[in-house]
Amino acid sequence: MISFTCDYLEGCHPSILKRLNDVNLTQHVGYGMDEECEGAAAKLRQAFSCGDAAVHFLTGGTQANTTVIAAALRPYEGVYCADTGHINTHETGAVESSGHKCLVLPSRDGIITASQVSVAAALQADDEHTVKPGMVYISMSTELGTVYNLAQLKDLYYTCRQHGLYLFIDGARLGYALASPIGDVSPEDIARYSDVFTVGGTKMGALFGEAVVITNPELKPRFRYVMKQRGGMLAKGWLLGVQFNALMEGGLYFELGRKAVAQAMRIRTALMEKGLPLYADSSTNQLFPILTDDQLEALEDDFTLSVWDRVDEASAAVRICTSWATPDEHVDRLIEAIEKL
Amino acid sequence: MISFTCDYLEGCHPSILKRLNDVNLTQHVGYGMDEECEGAAAKLRQAFSCGDAAVHFLTGGTQANTTVIAAALRPYEGVYCADTGHINTHETGAVESSGHKCLVLPSRDGIITASQVSVAAALQADDEHTVKPGMVYISMSTELGTVYNLAQLKDLYYTCRQHGLYLFIDGARLGYALASPIGDVSPEDIARYSDVFTVGGTKMGALFGEAVVITNPELKPRFRYVMKQRGGMLAKGWLLGVQFNALMEGGLYFELGRKAVAQAMRIRTALMEKGLPLYADSSTNQLFPILTDDQLEALEDDFTLSVWDRVDEASAAVRICTSWATPDEHVDRLIEAIEKL
Amino acid sequence: MISFTCDYLEGCHPSILKRLNDVNLTQHVGYGMDEECEGAAAKLRQAFSCGDAAVHFLTGGTQANTTVIAAALRPYEGVYCADTGHINTHETGAVESSGHKCLVLPSRDGIITASQVSVAAALQADDEHTVKPGMVYISMSTELGTVYNLAQLKDLYYTCRQHGLYLFIDGARLGYALASPIGDVSPEDIARYSDVFTVGGTKMGALFGEAVVITNPELKPRFRYVMKQRGGMLAKGWLLGVQFNALMEGGLYFELGRKAVAQAMRIRTALMEKGLPLYADSSTNQLFPILTDDQLEALEDDFTLSVWDRVDEASAAVRICTSWATPDEHVDRLIEAIEKL
Amino acid sequence: MISFTCDYLEGCHPSILKRLNDVNLTQHVGYGMDEECEGAAAKLRQAFSCGDAAVHFLTGGTQANTTVIAAALRPYEGVYCADTGHINTHETGAVESSGHKCLVLPSRDGIITASQVSVAAALQADDEHTVKPGMVYISMSTELGTVYNLAQLKDLYYTCRQHGLYLFIDGARLGYALASPIGDVSPEDIARYSDVFTVGGTKMGALFGEAVVITNPELKPRFRYVMKQRGGMLAKGWLLGVQFNALMEGGLYFELGRKAVAQAMRIRTALMEKGLPLYADSSTNQLFPILTDDQLEALEDDFTLSVWDRVDEASAAVRICTSWATPDEHVDRLIEAIEKL
Repeated sequence: MISFTCDYLEGCHPSILKRLNDVNLTQHVGYGMDEECEGAAAKLRQAFSCGDAAVHFLTGGTQANTTVIAAALRPYEGVYCADTGHINTHETGAVESSGHKCLVLPSRDGIITASQVSVAAALQADDEHTVKPGMVYISMSTELGTVYNLAQLKDLYYTCRQHGLYLFIDGARLGYALASPIGDVSPEDIARYSDVFTVGGTKMGALFGEAVVITNPELKPRFRYVMKQRGGMLAKGWLLGVQFNALMEGGLYFELGRKAVAQAMRIRTALMEKGLPLYADSSTNQLFPILTDDQLEALEDDFTLSVWDRVDEASAAVRICTSWATPDEHVDRLIEAIEKL
Repeated sequence: MISFTCDYLEGCHPSILKRLNDVNLTQHVGYGMDEECEGAAAKLRQAFSCGDAAVHFLTGGTQANTTVIAAALRPYEGVYCADTGHINTHETGAVESSGHKCLVLPSRDGIITASQVSVAAALQADDEHTVKPGMVYISMSTELGTVYNLAQLKDLYYTCRQHGLYLFIDGARLGYALASPIGDVSPEDIARYSDVFTVGGTKMGALFGEAVVITNPELKPRFRYVMKQRGGMLAKGWLLGVQFNALMEGGLYFELGRKAVAQAMRIRTALMEKGLPLYADSSTNQLFPILTDDQLEALEDDFTLSVWDRVDEASAAVRICTSWATPDEHVDRLIEAIEKL
Repeated sequence: MISFTCDYLEGCHPSILKRLNDVNLTQHVGYGMDEECEGAAAKLRQAFSCGDAAVHFLTGGTQANTTVIAAALRPYEGVYCADTGHINTHETGAVESSGHKCLVLPSRDGIITASQVSVAAALQADDEHTVKPGMVYISMSTELGTVYNLAQLKDLYYTCRQHGLYLFIDGARLGYALASPIGDVSPEDIARYSDVFTVGGTKMGALFGEAVVITNPELKPRFRYVMKQRGGMLAKGWLLGVQFNALMEGGLYFELGRKAVAQAMRIRTALMEKGLPLYADSSTNQLFPILTDDQLEALEDDFTLSVWDRVDEASAAVRICTSWATPDEHVDRLIEAIEKL
Repeated sequence: MISFTCDYLEGCHPSILKRLNDVNLTQHVGYGMDEECEGAAAKLRQAFSCGDAAVHFLTGGTQANTTVIAAALRPYEGVYCADTGHINTHETGAVESSGHKCLVLPSRDGIITASQVSVAAALQADDEHTVKPGMVYISMSTELGTVYNLAQLKDLYYTCRQHGLYLFIDGARLGYALASPIGDVSPEDIARYSDVFTVGGTKMGALFGEAVVITNPELKPRFRYVMKQRGGMLAKGWLLGVQFNALMEGGLYFELGRKAVAQAMRIRTALMEKGLPLYADSSTNQLFPILTDDQLEALEDDFTLSVWDRVDEASAAVRICTSWATPDEHVDRLIEAIEKL
């Protein structure tokens, strides 16, 4: 059985493992104050052209999202997000657990627009009976594999500026987003048109870990206190430094993204050619074809896939996920199988 | 100017004030352990036919809602509610502030149905990545002046039983709901078909205060700890006992509800006769006619009203609210004005 | 039986009740935006010589303390307080429930000193592994009936300034504190040497309610959001305005404090003359004589008293509490009884 | 420079790294539902003789402590702990951040006794104005390197039973504790005389990670929800399984503990022979000699040490920490240096 269920099935890219083997017995100071973290932060600042950014490393996505939001907002503030947003759907209410409300906006293919935010924020009087919006959260790529284009991102950013909102980009799959063949957002744009963003490691070839990059100076002070309080500060913080050091070395992170997306695009072409409808018009490493139950059953002889959403009585949207580690052969075999449907 | 903006413009019913004057200098033990509270609790148990219920008195509606929910749920549990539900819209995220997510369901005229809950709960696997539903919250009457009928209430209750959910009825306007001319729910039904409910005082002729009536034994232990911790336990708790003692005396509470609803129904008839559309089909003390801006302006010469929602560029839904204290004359004058529109 | 157990046994001072009777049926706008609150706020600003202060009215002490602290602190900040402080001992962990740690300092007669704060804050590096101190909380009068003198208060205030801490005075019994025969702190001093303080109504002749007076501009923005979120905003907020309007009229608040303290001092003299030791050297409306069990039993024939703390196997510290409502005759009878011990 | 500052300077034991290298590219299901975690859990159950225990793997100590406590307690409950307890001193108020108060007991060498708990719990009426004790937290070994002996542990456990409290053992350094030459507690005892305990990996040769072992069935349901909500559930959960699999293989975990403690005991002997006083009478991998500033300065030529606490103007308690990775040669050189003081 070949699994296309998610992008975190394997461990880490060999270059990470090599670096880990190399420094494993070197002594490092604790809690992310070491040279590995320093080096990784420097590379991230350079790759995203944000020389003044504060960079922190956390253990996982839910951890990173909750910490960023808890650190940024006052107790009565909430965060706008897509109904499909990870913080709204798959983090067990971690944001609410920290006291903040998700202010949910309907989305199309996982995307929310500046005008939605603008309308919502304009309707919202400064009224103490309601949650005050404090932030907009978007995922890049989205949970449906789509990407914001540069115009959308800039619009969101300037709308946020206008309404006194922070813009937070959840980049759990940022490397895949930046590799989208229809995308026009560069790493620099990510940093320039947001107040804080994450660079996901877990789904992009690391063992685990997310980098938080804070460009807005208002959000920098005492972020480490919130990291520690929320259990996201690793004693051996250099473990995360090692991984991002390897990932950012020579643009490996972006290369891994491109590779996975190329694999996905090959599958996408096969789906299109077969005339299979798509649940969402994704252009990254996640694909959501709508399959009849018969088609799904046929594929399940050789492949493990996730059912994402029932579409009607006889068909469902299925998630097909490639990753940095997906071998050509697996893709070839899936394409063959699709052709035979 | 005559105000129809809300149902808490005046102080309290004279019989409450009288009782307060009578006992003001009597010494009472603190924190609601006094005879006034005991007496009021007994009357509530009798009026709602729930002899074993635990009864507590809190200072206000947001306080009561948050305390009930925080006391009932485990950290990872959330509460289903209508998108229009008070806890979702007008409590500044108090529920989230206590760590719990509002699991929002779309509503029709403020009402959610058993089948919505059933579908949502069935889709919801016992999956630790998502908030576990723990409770259903409904308002009776709803924020749009509508009421659940007995069939709807029973359906909700049994659906909750089936899915391991508590049913919580926010009765901030319970007295008005029970006076609805099209309603068929009795006080006994409220107690029988819920796990916990509130009997609102603030909007029903008290100075302030909400009674929390807990019929489900699972929800009874140590409720007072949560009351105290969340700032809802009054040192001179007998103040609340005095008020509910007076309100429940001889069925006054229900009478006040009927009086206000009768006034509203007179206004409703005038609106209907004038052919004015209604934003929600309410049958209690709140009415939501849709007025053109010209019509609203005309009324605003003599009346203060709340704009509830813009409907289109030239018209808006307006809230007209009667209360136990609304005099006939005010209603007469409003009807006259409506007729002249 | 005559009760000296606490200072909130009765309802309110007649002048409050009169004012309430007068305006009960007057319509007021909701949530404390009315003229009664405005008038009461103006009188408080004048009485405490703090013309720019923001004034809010909340329902009770735990509510007020938690709201002030939650509004002032960042998630990782805590509040220094005496081990005997009300927030540390008798609020069911409300402060912790809002996410903040009480940083407890040992106290003498309920009092903590500037040098304790100074030493503690100096030891405390800016280290993200520990809670960052953000505020100092003191009670005036303390839970043991003692008062800070002006030198102590100024020292604390300037120490707070030096270490970037807010100073919060819990004035649940402020009127009694200001009436201490050995006290030298004026109302002006309270406002001048703190960032925020409360003026307690519940224990000082109101039915219920605490005024929060914020002098530090940093603490003013959006306080009402936190009030609402934490359930402390009353729909009929004018109820609190009415009470503080009456209490602050013609200095009544301070007069009530003086009256209660004078009564307590008469009892204190009797205790002294009888040679009874005091558990704490209080000078306000609370006295803590140490009585043998026999003495206590003798007094309990006619009086209800609270045992505060066991001192040894045969004796206990007992709290004797007077209030604005304590009649001369009750004091006379208690003194007689003390003399007979 | 040789560092004795802490026990998490290096990465992981070679056998862990080997196992990680072996399975790095194997596909695993996510979130700790894989065979590595299953295998590691089975070995832990066997090593601690608790066949029915639920075993979970979290990323770090603060994470594990907060998750266990948040999952076990109701909102109004607190946790007894030593004043020196890690949750009280070095977790940035994480426990309070989850809403629960640390009920601090004075300790001797980091140890609290059953009679302290018993007295505190007995004084504590079931009174809703105070935090209800719900759990006792102890560290084994303690933050001062000491250990509970079996009699102390059993006493604590049965006292907890009597008062309805859970007993939680923070085993961040459990392997070192079990290797104490004066200790008489076995792994079985740890499981038998507690309701939940952790087996620390981070400080015991893992890259990172703590195992939570829940023996009390009341604490088992839906623990994974709290893990996820608090950001402690790793997508590639098998990473933790791999590590504990290697650590528990053939008793390696206990062997690493013994090795580190043996090294520490050699240093302890040197300190004793030199007549240097000890700040705490530790018997595990942490030593706390009191050194004059001159002595400290002399040692700091070649060694990095942590100042733990100033003792007087001219001397300080210093922490010397060995670990599973401390080489003989480093110990030899430190002993030499101590002899020369």
